[in-house]
Amino acid sequence: MARANHRLTKIPEMAIRRLSVYTRCLQQLEEDGVKTISSQELAERFSLNSAQVRKDLAYFGEFGVRGIGYYVAGLKAELQRILGLDREWSVALVGLGNLGSALFHYKGFARQGFRIAVVIDDDPAKIGREIESVPIVGSRDMAREIKARAVQIAIVAVPPEAAQTVTEQLVAAGIKAVLNFAPTRLRVGREVRLKNVDLSIELETLSFYLAKGAR
Amino acid sequence: MARANHRLTKIPEMAIRRLSVYTRCLQQLEEDGVKTISSQELAERFSLNSAQVRKDLAYFGEFGVRGIGYYVAGLKAELQRILGLDREWSVALVGLGNLGSALFHYKGFARQGFRIAVVIDDDPAKIGREIESVPIVGSRDMAREIKARAVQIAIVAVPPEAAQTVTEQLVAAGIKAVLNFAPTRLRVGREVRLKNVDLSIELETLSFYLAKGAR
Repeated sequence: MARANHRLTKIPEMAIRRLSVYTRCLQQLEEDGVKTISSQELAERFSLNSAQVRKDLAYFGEFGVRGIGYYVAGLKAELQRILGLDREWSVALVGLGNLGSALFHYKGFARQGFRIAVVIDDDPAKIGREIESVPIVGSRDMAREIKARAVQIAIVAVPPEAAQTVTEQLVAAGIKAVLNFAPTRLRVGREVRLKNVDLSIELETLSFYLAKGAR
Repeated sequence: MARANHRLTKIPEMAIRRLSVYTRCLQQLEEDGVKTISSQELAERFSLNSAQVRKDLAYFGEFGVRGIGYYVAGLKAELQRILGLDREWSVALVGLGNLGSALFHYKGFARQGFRIAVVIDDDPAKIGREIESVPIVGSRDMAREIKARAVQIAIVAVPPEAAQTVTEQLVAAGIKAVLNFAPTRLRVGREVRLKNVDLSIELETLSFYLAKGAR
């Protein structure tokens, strides 16, 4: 019934985002010693939508077993493989201001296999130094470092006015995916995956509920 | 056909998140001098799904006009009202480390009406000082400040081991919504809206596409 159809259908980005959430839920279940779980139980325990869970998973294969549900460890491993989390990714962090420093120290990245391999910053006081054994280089040397370290993903945490230029340099250096924290709209070619993080959207979900409560 | 049914139906959080995205698109259109737009044009221009746009908007009312589409300025104002962005929200920022400092200076919050009214940090070197005229207080004074400034939303940017305790103090002080950046699972009562920001999920969407391309 639900066969792997990811070669036929365009998978919504939100479904991929939800796979990340499911993976975290399965991780939690595994830590709690749960071996198997139905989509209903999974949905109830983590406030998900069970029909949505089944639909999302169906994009990638047939994971449920009749009368049993999902094998927690097996499904987790499978989702991690789909998300590319069964390997390590070298990441370039661009910009080591407040936000860049916070992202550098963010524990969640390394836990999922994203290793910051090089930091790029044009502050003369930082160039040539290291932060926790990771080299800090100026943008004039970024292409060399990105190639030498086989970096495919860049996190952009520079001021908005610098973001477009640095992104073009990153793409020229071979970067294939950009996670942009600068509050500006970047333009990249179709060969590059761009994801913008807009932190105020998260606050707006909260103000929606507060405003609704007040109405 | 598409009548406001938000009193009858549970609105998916993702739909609310998308309202924020639509609001930004409409803002952009308004700046470009566009007066009206159809859902198809809106979808094409911003890589959205036009059926999804119509469905999401239908949760809140009947906004389209036959033969015209949407009035850009009117729809934007209406969505802003729904999202609670037609007013200012006082926010408490808890934790002024790297991430807290980055969030304090993040331009996007103020632009959407979220004003950081008080910073809470227990570093003796920070307590009693100000940052850009915003007072920094210790956690022992947070309840007083939160009440005095009518703060309803808190942004938690403390180390994971401190997050649960501080969140309980915030809730006791009257906070109604928490945006949590600490990479830990917080427990709050049903009367409090909690939103966790997991920055590695954004990276995982990118690694999915890179891994897919490599398969």
